Amino acid sequence: MYALIMAGGTGTRLWPRSRVATPKQFLPLLGQRTMLQETADRILPLVRPEQIIVVTGQRYIDLVAEQLPDVPREQLIGEPSGRGSAPAIGLGALAMLPHEPQATMVVLSSDHQIRKADVFRAALQAAEELAQQGYLVTLGIQPTEPQTGYGYIQRRAPLGQFNGFAAYEVERFVEKPQRATAEAYVQSGQYSWNAGIFVWRVDTIMAAFAEHLPQLHEELGAIERAGGPSNPAAFGAVWDGIENITIDYGIMERARRIAVIPVDIGWSDVGDWDSLAELAAEDQGQLVQGQHVGIDTANTLIYGNSDRLIATIGLDNFLVVDTGDALLVAPRDRAQDVKRIVDELKRQGRTDLL
Amino acid sequence: MYALIMAGGTGTRLWPRSRVATPKQFLPLLGQRTMLQETADRILPLVRPEQIIVVTGQRYIDLVAEQLPDVPREQLIGEPSGRGSAPAIGLGALAMLPHEPQATMVVLSSDHQIRKADVFRAALQAAEELAQQGYLVTLGIQPTEPQTGYGYIQRRAPLGQFNGFAAYEVERFVEKPQRATAEAYVQSGQYSWNAGIFVWRVDTIMAAFAEHLPQLHEELGAIERAGGPSNPAAFGAVWDGIENITIDYGIMERARRIAVIPVDIGWSDVGDWDSLAELAAEDQGQLVQGQHVGIDTANTLIYGNSDRLIATIGLDNFLVVDTGDALLVAPRDRAQDVKRIVDELKRQGRTDLL
Repeated sequence: MYALIMAGGTGTRLWPRSRVATPKQFLPLLGQRTMLQETADRILPLVRPEQIIVVTGQRYIDLVAEQLPDVPREQLIGEPSGRGSAPAIGLGALAMLPHEPQATMVVLSSDHQIRKADVFRAALQAAEELAQQGYLVTLGIQPTEPQTGYGYIQRRAPLGQFNGFAAYEVERFVEKPQRATAEAYVQSGQYSWNAGIFVWRVDTIMAAFAEHLPQLHEELGAIERAGGPSNPAAFGAVWDGIENITIDYGIMERARRIAVIPVDIGWSDVGDWDSLAELAAEDQGQLVQGQHVGIDTANTLIYGNSDRLIATIGLDNFLVVDTGDALLVAPRDRAQDVKRIVDELKRQGRTDLL
Repeated sequence: MYALIMAGGTGTRLWPRSRVATPKQFLPLLGQRTMLQETADRILPLVRPEQIIVVTGQRYIDLVAEQLPDVPREQLIGEPSGRGSAPAIGLGALAMLPHEPQATMVVLSSDHQIRKADVFRAALQAAEELAQQGYLVTLGIQPTEPQTGYGYIQRRAPLGQFNGFAAYEVERFVEKPQRATAEAYVQSGQYSWNAGIFVWRVDTIMAAFAEHLPQLHEELGAIERAGGPSNPAAFGAVWDGIENITIDYGIMERARRIAVIPVDIGWSDVGDWDSLAELAAEDQGQLVQGQHVGIDTANTLIYGNSDRLIATIGLDNFLVVDTGDALLVAPRDRAQDVKRIVDELKRQGRTDLL
C-alpha cells in the first residue's frame, strides 16, 4: 500500500493563522503536531515512510521535508502551481507506477482531522480489498447535517462486507448542493459526504486517466519522460498548459466500477474558525489558547498569541484570533467570510499579511 | 487668576490604553496633544504658565514636567498617594496662598474634553466676578441625558448676569443618582451636572477648609510649616493619616454662598471607551485608528496599534482596542465593565498589564 498525501492547499479561511508561507496543513492547529504530521502519523501503521508520497507546492518542499523527515526527499513532489486534484493525483500515481503498478494507492488530504484513526485504518483495509478487484473506492462520510460546503456520493447496490464494512456501488457523485437538496440527501439515507479519501490500484487509476482525461494523461507522460515529477525541471513548459480540474469532476463522475464505503471516522475538514472552535471544545474541552481574561464571555474561541493578553466582555459565540501582525474579530457564524478579508488584503496588495 | 490642574487620576476605564505608568491625562487620546496639555492650552489665554499649579501623583511629576515644560517645576505638586479632591485642592490653594490670597483660583480636571474653549473661558471670567464677591462658584454642565455617572447641582434664586452668563445660588449638591431620579432632575430644568470645575478666591476656599474640614486644614498647615507641598519631604508622616475625601462632600455640600453658572461648553469627561468613540465620531468623523479591514462593520471603535492589522466581520457597536501587550474586545454598551477586567488583572497580580 502506498499513501499519497495532498498538501497543496492554502487554508485561506483560517487566516490570519494560516498564511501563504505556512498554510493550515503545516500548522499545529489542534495539538502539538502539525496537521500534515498527524496525517502521516495516522497512516504509518499501514505503510512505511518510503511508501508515502507528498504532492505540494514547490515552495513548500523544504517545509514538508522538515516536518516529515522520515519520508525520502525524492518522494516529495513540488507542483510549480496548483492545478486541482486530478493533476496532483496523476503526479503521485506516476511516481508510484514504476515501482509496483498493482499496489494499492490511498489518497489523503493533509489538512483534515480524523478522530477515530483505528476505524479509519480498518476502513482503508476494507477499501484495499475492493481496490484489488479493480474498483475506484472512496470512503464516504456519514453526514451529520445538511452541509452545503461538501460534495455528496449517492450509493446504489451493496457490494458486500469487507473487513466488517458494508460497501456499495456508487450511483453518482454530486457537487456542493443547495440547502434544500442537501436536506433531501441527508433525509434519504443514501448519501455520504465526499471527503476526498480515495483508494485504488495504481494501474487502475492510470487507466482511468488514459480513458477520461487523455490530454492530462499525455501531459503527465511528457513529465515522466523528462525525468519524472520528483525532478523540478521535468515540469518544463508542460505544466503551464495543464487544465485545472478536480479528480471528482474529471474521473469519479465519469468512470465505471466506483465503490463507496460509508464510514463514521470522526472526520472534519477543519474548514474555518467555527469548525476549529467546535473541535477545540470537543477535544480539549475549552476554547482558549493564550492569555485571556473574560467577563461574560461564552462559546468564544480565543486563539491568542501568547505574548499578549486578550480581554473580552460580553461576547457569545465569537472568534478572536490574534497573531503577531494581525487580529481577527468576528461572530462565529461569519467564519466563512474570513475569505473576504483575505480577498480585500489581496486587492490592497498586502502580501505581507497573506 | 491661578489655575489648579488636577492630574492624579488613574483612567482605569480606558484600559488597556490608559495604564498606571501613563494614565489617561498623559495620553493624546483625541488629537496630537495629551489631555493634560490640552487642558493647559485651554486655560493659557487667561493665565501665565507661572500661574498654573498641577497636583498629581509623585510618580508622575517628571511626566508633567515633560508635557508642560513652561510651568515652573516648583509648581508641580506630587502627592505621595491619592486622597481625593479635597486634600489635592487644599495643597494647591496652599501653594498659591503666600503669593496672592485674594487671587482667583480655577480648579480644572486634566482629563476632560471641552470643545467650546471660548465659551468656557468666558464663563470662567463670569465666575471670577462672583468669586471676587466671596462665592464658591462652580460651572454646571447642561445635562443632555439622565446620566447616573455624575453628581448633580440644583439651582435656586438667580444671582444676575455676569459676563453674559446667568448665575444662580446653589440649592444643593447631590451625589450620583439612580436612573429615575436622574430623569426627574433633567426633566425639572433645575439641575446641572457637576463637572468638578470650581472658581473661588484662594482665601475663601482656605476659610472654607478651616470651617468645614478643620482637621484637614490643620494637616495642610503642618505640611506648609514643614516646607510646603512643592517639597516632597514636607508630606512626612502627615499624609498617611489624611482622610480620603472629595471637595463636593467635604465643602460644597456644606458651605454657604455657593453659586452655579450653567454652561454649554461641549464638555465630556471621556469616561470610558464608549464616550471616546462618540467623541471620535463627532470630532474626526470616523472611529478607526491604525490599520483596519472591515466587512459589515459599523459604529465600531477600532483603536489600533499601527504595527498590526485589525480585521473585523459583522461587528456593530463594538470596541476593539489593541495595544502592544493587550487587546480588548467588547460591545460598546459594556464599556463600563472594563474596570472589571482591570480588577481581575489586579487580583491575578498582573502588574505588568495595569
